[in-house]
Amino acid sequence: MTAEIITIGDELLIGQIVDTNSAWIGEQLSLTGIKVHQISSISDNEEHILKALAEAEKRVDLVLITGGLGPTKDDITKKTLCKYFDTDLVMYEDILAKIKEFFDRRGFKMLDVNKQQAALPENCTIIPNPVGTASGMWFEKNKTIFVSMPGIPHEMKRIMTDGVLPKLKKEYDLPVILHRTILTYGIIESELSDLLEDFEKKLPEGVKLAYLPSLERLRLRLSISGKHKLELEKILDEQENKLKKYLGNKIFGYGDSSLQEAVGILLKEKKQTLSTAESCTGGNIAHKITSVSGSSQYFKGSVVAYDNSIKQNVLQVQELSLIKYGAVSKEVVEQMALGIQKLMQTDYAIATSGIAGPTGGTNEKPVGTTWIAIASPDGEVYTRKYVFGTQREQNIRRATSVALNNLRKLLLKE
Amino acid sequence: MTAEIITIGDELLIGQIVDTNSAWIGEQLSLTGIKVHQISSISDNEEHILKALAEAEKRVDLVLITGGLGPTKDDITKKTLCKYFDTDLVMYEDILAKIKEFFDRRGFKMLDVNKQQAALPENCTIIPNPVGTASGMWFEKNKTIFVSMPGIPHEMKRIMTDGVLPKLKKEYDLPVILHRTILTYGIIESELSDLLEDFEKKLPEGVKLAYLPSLERLRLRLSISGKHKLELEKILDEQENKLKKYLGNKIFGYGDSSLQEAVGILLKEKKQTLSTAESCTGGNIAHKITSVSGSSQYFKGSVVAYDNSIKQNVLQVQELSLIKYGAVSKEVVEQMALGIQKLMQTDYAIATSGIAGPTGGTNEKPVGTTWIAIASPDGEVYTRKYVFGTQREQNIRRATSVALNNLRKLLLKE
Repeated sequence: MTAEIITIGDELLIGQIVDTNSAWIGEQLSLTGIKVHQISSISDNEEHILKALAEAEKRVDLVLITGGLGPTKDDITKKTLCKYFDTDLVMYEDILAKIKEFFDRRGFKMLDVNKQQAALPENCTIIPNPVGTASGMWFEKNKTIFVSMPGIPHEMKRIMTDGVLPKLKKEYDLPVILHRTILTYGIIESELSDLLEDFEKKLPEGVKLAYLPSLERLRLRLSISGKHKLELEKILDEQENKLKKYLGNKIFGYGDSSLQEAVGILLKEKKQTLSTAESCTGGNIAHKITSVSGSSQYFKGSVVAYDNSIKQNVLQVQELSLIKYGAVSKEVVEQMALGIQKLMQTDYAIATSGIAGPTGGTNEKPVGTTWIAIASPDGEVYTRKYVFGTQREQNIRRATSVALNNLRKLLLKE
Repeated sequence: MTAEIITIGDELLIGQIVDTNSAWIGEQLSLTGIKVHQISSISDNEEHILKALAEAEKRVDLVLITGGLGPTKDDITKKTLCKYFDTDLVMYEDILAKIKEFFDRRGFKMLDVNKQQAALPENCTIIPNPVGTASGMWFEKNKTIFVSMPGIPHEMKRIMTDGVLPKLKKEYDLPVILHRTILTYGIIESELSDLLEDFEKKLPEGVKLAYLPSLERLRLRLSISGKHKLELEKILDEQENKLKKYLGNKIFGYGDSSLQEAVGILLKEKKQTLSTAESCTGGNIAHKITSVSGSSQYFKGSVVAYDNSIKQNVLQVQELSLIKYGAVSKEVVEQMALGIQKLMQTDYAIATSGIAGPTGGTNEKPVGTTWIAIASPDGEVYTRKYVFGTQREQNIRRATSVALNNLRKLLLKE
């Protein structure tokens, strides 16, 4: 089965919203064995929607549509679908009752525009929305399935997970597409490609390797498709094992994991605790760590010491060091690491101090200069200087990733 | 001028990467007066790329292509472009010298695959990449312009900003498309739509209003297109002023601003300072605040008190309160706010304590229960309880936005 995703909304085309729905849908379909042929974002315009539906109908078996189902006047998807499938809107009383209940439960007043959310095409199968008022709609035309869903991500996800995917699995015989994702950090794409040249040359027919770099991780994806799941699994197992031998500790995880999860797993294994003292990263390391459910088992807390007075009074950094070396220095970042380790009574501690930018750099310490220290239980502090780029957001993200990876490497060693 | 954006990469279709490039390009084109007709994501497949280029050529004047220009073997865009434009790759010695310099400066070893980045189509105009090794390529065919760029966001952005957009503005007579974005928080879409029913009915011909909700803000966008910029500006000015009267303090900013920027502006005006004590938000409020350049003027720091011992020992929360009311309670969150305000000597302080989930809830305090307190300079603490949803990431983001908006409202009042 092949699919296309169509996301509707002028806001996508003029860039006021990043389309995160397509990536999520694409992943779910791939995991279900449905090959995504294309993703298209189009405008809230009847003619354009009708044309996109007709084109997709010719190309694929399944068209998933998001957006344009809100209660406001700029949302025209529902009426356009009626035109395409030659049907009319009728009031679904059971849906109306659910919408009313939805508003009652939240204590919101139900308005006329909300009631209109229960007016739906007569000839479609309704896919319920358990977390919102815009229902999913399943149509069939010339052997192509069309499903229209709201654009609000968590509503679309529930409609997919609870309704669309189970229905597809039940009613269609789907082939197998398998992926393995191996996560690395601290090695750039061209170096990795060089290291894996031989491995890639020897890949069996039908197995693909892709490189997916970002600021948080470099993902390697092995893919294969076919009919016999167990056979395909075996081929991928072999290739994955080979890859592991090439990469060793450069691998920090698999699938959709993250450096903060890898660090969390190691800390839990060792029954050890962590705290952070952050200047340039401004709390982002703590935020990443605490984004992992269960992190309270090993993470005690953080001091974001943005002002020098906090470095002195809360983290016990010596005033003399701040004057002599400046806040962005080996001496200060090491005192920050030891200070937070002592204050929060943790085994490990991360500290960062740098110039996130875009202003504040000097010749000696340009924007991007960042000191990262890790204090370990034996009293040692491992410190290194980095010079990242000129963009604030990127520098914060890079410093966060490098700090987590340095801690990971230290945890593996000790 | 009309445009399409084509992003190339299997990783987009199987959802391993969210396409953020298209949104950015879409915004830049809109601001330049170029109407984006469609965005398409397609696979790393020669046939598919050729077909997508041919289709887009028929529909629009400008096709912007990203992705598939990396040094690894899964990147086939360059060769496919040669086929489409009937040309060959030749070695550009000046580009090779620049790539060599790029590697020398970073102290990386230049590999053979990197050298190949200087082999580029003979009949295109090279648009330099000042921050990477994959050059931009500008082609023209049957009056349609095609520009191919790497998929790495910061490289693509520099090629667009330094090369593509200036060239378009210089060489073509572009019409005017104007947008105004008004940012609100704390009012849901249907309520807002109800409030603005009369306003929307009276909108002049050609002016569109769109609602763009997210967890961080609800954006309202007024749009108009035409030829005479001053005339269009005047019409939008009038409508924007009308909208301001309807919404008052519900508006926190304009354009691409954020709650953390709005709070920063108010604190700077008042020459007042802020600190945060975060439990369930885990440092995300500090992270958001410090993502704003210049925030060190008003933000002193934060204590992420994930463990109860930190609440007691660093923030001076009473042990008895923790035992009697629990960490997620009015009493504890207020002591946290007062504790951090005193510790960091700031005028205002934000504190959060809640159950982010997905586990840890009880009947009395379900997942999503969150207390948010704001301590003000006069010693008052404003505290409120919220019950958000069951998803960890969303709860953290919601609590962060609500806390920043509560502080904003208090700053406007005082």
